[in-house]
Amino acid sequence: MTLPIPERLQDLLTRQKRAFAFLALVKKDGTPQVTPIWFDFDGQQFIFNTARGRVKDRIMRKHPRVAFVILDPDNSYRYLQVFGHVVAESEEDGRARIEDLNEKYQGKREYPVRPGEVRVTYRVEPDRFYPRN
Amino acid sequence: MTLPIPERLQDLLTRQKRAFAFLALVKKDGTPQVTPIWFDFDGQQFIFNTARGRVKDRIMRKHPRVAFVILDPDNSYRYLQVFGHVVAESEEDGRARIEDLNEKYQGKREYPVRPGEVRVTYRVEPDRFYPRN
Repeated sequence: MTLPIPERLQDLLTRQKRAFAFLALVKKDGTPQVTPIWFDFDGQQFIFNTARGRVKDRIMRKHPRVAFVILDPDNSYRYLQVFGHVVAESEEDGRARIEDLNEKYQGKREYPVRPGEVRVTYRVEPDRFYPRN
Repeated sequence: MTLPIPERLQDLLTRQKRAFAFLALVKKDGTPQVTPIWFDFDGQQFIFNTARGRVKDRIMRKHPRVAFVILDPDNSYRYLQVFGHVVAESEEDGRARIEDLNEKYQGKREYPVRPGEVRVTYRVEPDRFYPRN
């Protein structure tokens, strides 16, 4: 099942727009955390990528419910608020997806993965959208 | 006691910059929420303003620990990550502070408060800063 995305904000999800997501997570101690993060959207799921062992990775493995804001980089008053939950987590396509993201945001696929760094792809299914503009 | 703000990101806190804060809170059910919000910084505390009864107000009264990102509106790769806690909440200067904020972001003091709307000012003291740029 796919949630309808509010039409007037669909441009924020395109690769051309290069919008960031501001991803909010809840830490083990019950307090919040928020960071800007690259994302891709495949029409159904939001795709995030991080390195195994980082705070975002550790939290999302345990607390799958997330919230984020997709901000129009050209107008801070246009944004899409999203509530969702992690549906998949995979190292298998960790490298391929960070390369997709690097291509979207930096214009080239090669991404400098550090020695020993394992990339992880998270897929998030949206539960609710709140458009603001 | 005032935390030192990383010098190279101090411009993000000036009124001229008109940066937004992306404020993450934890809802009653333990899941996160994030919204862009106007802020002021008086050199020690961050000042937010909302309307009594809104989600942000209800959460901050109960869960004083907050996190936010202050984003450079001119460069999404420059931001200051802040962890802090609510130290004061007041209706008394609710109207005056939203007018300050309206002046900062919209260039005029008069702010259209709706009939029956009570403005509330929250003051947040920073506990930790993580500069990213």
